[in-house]
Amino acid sequence: MKINGTPYRTIWTAADNEAVEIIDQTRLPHIFSTIRLENMRDAERAIRDMQVRGAPLIGVTGAYGVALSMRHHASNAALNATCDVLLAARPTAVNLRWGIERMRAFLAPITVHERAAAAWQEARCIADEDVEINASIGRHGIALIRELHQKKNSTVNILTHCNAGWLATVDWGTALAPVYAAFDAGIPLHVWVDETRPRNQGANLTAWELGQHGVPHTVITDNTGGHLMQHNMVDMAIVGTDRVTAHGDVCNKIGTYLKALAAYDNGVPFYVAMPTPTIDWTLQDGVKEIPIEERAEEEVTHISGLCNDGQVRTVQLTPAGSRAANYGFDVTPARLVTGLITEHGVVAANAGAIRTLY
Amino acid sequence: MKINGTPYRTIWTAADNEAVEIIDQTRLPHIFSTIRLENMRDAERAIRDMQVRGAPLIGVTGAYGVALSMRHHASNAALNATCDVLLAARPTAVNLRWGIERMRAFLAPITVHERAAAAWQEARCIADEDVEINASIGRHGIALIRELHQKKNSTVNILTHCNAGWLATVDWGTALAPVYAAFDAGIPLHVWVDETRPRNQGANLTAWELGQHGVPHTVITDNTGGHLMQHNMVDMAIVGTDRVTAHGDVCNKIGTYLKALAAYDNGVPFYVAMPTPTIDWTLQDGVKEIPIEERAEEEVTHISGLCNDGQVRTVQLTPAGSRAANYGFDVTPARLVTGLITEHGVVAANAGAIRTLY
Repeated sequence: MKINGTPYRTIWTAADNEAVEIIDQTRLPHIFSTIRLENMRDAERAIRDMQVRGAPLIGVTGAYGVALSMRHHASNAALNATCDVLLAARPTAVNLRWGIERMRAFLAPITVHERAAAAWQEARCIADEDVEINASIGRHGIALIRELHQKKNSTVNILTHCNAGWLATVDWGTALAPVYAAFDAGIPLHVWVDETRPRNQGANLTAWELGQHGVPHTVITDNTGGHLMQHNMVDMAIVGTDRVTAHGDVCNKIGTYLKALAAYDNGVPFYVAMPTPTIDWTLQDGVKEIPIEERAEEEVTHISGLCNDGQVRTVQLTPAGSRAANYGFDVTPARLVTGLITEHGVVAANAGAIRTLY
Repeated sequence: MKINGTPYRTIWTAADNEAVEIIDQTRLPHIFSTIRLENMRDAERAIRDMQVRGAPLIGVTGAYGVALSMRHHASNAALNATCDVLLAARPTAVNLRWGIERMRAFLAPITVHERAAAAWQEARCIADEDVEINASIGRHGIALIRELHQKKNSTVNILTHCNAGWLATVDWGTALAPVYAAFDAGIPLHVWVDETRPRNQGANLTAWELGQHGVPHTVITDNTGGHLMQHNMVDMAIVGTDRVTAHGDVCNKIGTYLKALAAYDNGVPFYVAMPTPTIDWTLQDGVKEIPIEERAEEEVTHISGLCNDGQVRTVQLTPAGSRAANYGFDVTPARLVTGLITEHGVVAANAGAIRTLY
């Protein structure tokens, strides 16, 4: 997608083909800067310090990390050591493990002197595959937006929560892939961006990437979506997800469930966009079975932003002595989900429909 | 209620009986300071600059403003000029108008030389009446909390949104009156405090006043309540309200509707606490009939907090160029409300039950 008119991906090979470059997402939305990753340590730091975030992008960065390492040392010992270091950067990131293990399995049978070139090629391939999956989600999702536009014959208002945009992937995004596809196709639309406390990925990242690409949008507090839906100001909601059960329950950023309830109460279609590997076939009842991560309370009690002296500063919001709780995700029961937008098509959120994806 | 062990009201007559004192609520939760109001201009500024806020407290401050003015000039002309100045401090505040018009009607037939003393007496009376109404809400609400405690025989978890605590009234509060009554009676309880974006009255005020009185509480983002309710971590919700229709629809701070939906979906009792004058008999369908105030977008795009240099600073959250929308309130349909806790008792949120209050 575009930044100030120029097409970008979130990770790309440098012009000299000797490194990869990324957007430093920790500095968004106030500062846009890129970072050059020359070796495995650079990649490991980018993952650990969350300069890259979003499951697909983390996986691709891990793969490139292996490729960068192979340029310097390509022995079996080096390959395994590289994989271990990169995996430790974010031990719970499923996509990181997937990307690295794919590289390890791919490179193991290849001779040492061919590994560097092969690794580079494979990492590019993984990145391109991510772009293609998301573009495909966009192609399937655009039909839903087009239909709404044909029905109302005016601007389609889409609500999204958190950031499931191109910044979380290599390009296009998941929840925002249909939005970008529709926008690029000239369908008039406007996005309501939930700020998504506590980490404000909506206000920080979704608003920034939509703005840079030129998509009309408005930031709202997480409290606002229900009111908008009551007053016919939302035509559809599209969110991303970290994990979908075999029965269609959706684990996503905390607060998603509240928006799904409001959508259901007001007859607003509520869609979840994701690549099919997000489905966890071992899980049925998401509310009962999915453990919810508790994160640091400082994410609730403190917040960062741009001060009028031009510095990004952190301020404390809560009174001294008040504790905070910080649950990272919640589970939206399948009964509240209108459909799943995947790279293979749109299906209902129930066990039978989900099985047809395979 | 208590601040650091000492009982306070939000407004009280000074020890020398020549002025009133208030808590400067604009500096909470990071700085506790009081302000002395000596004349009508002081009262007008306190109201206009929101050093006092909350409908009942604004009304009482207006009444004291009239009383302070009468000490200096008590003619009919002075009385009317005073009322006009104070009304203009917050022209849309219904309680301010009520408090001032009550003072004007009370003082008009009284001779000029008796007005100062009578006004002082009447303002105290209005303040005491507010305390008694809220204490009565507490007495009715405590029964609900006690019942929950008897049923589960462990700590009762209560969720609240925004600030309908003693800081919004003269003492006790509305939504928090039952909480303080139950806490003071020794019923073990814990309050989940929604931070309440964009103005963060929960994180700023509710957390502060609960903490000062010693009530166990935890601040959460507005996104969190649904997840907690899904996991049986909320036994009841109690919120305040600005306006209730004759059919029981509840207008309250934006986001209340989302919590009511989650409560309904999970079988959690959802109560609204308020004095009966909050009922607007002219309204039936709250979603259709109540206009919702749109406030400045800076309340969404910027936020203030305590910087690590000890200064309270404002930071910008959103990217340059992204607009924000700021709807101040939403309407919770009566079907989602378990009951209304009033000074006359607890009633169901429907037209028939509400009529029995009179």
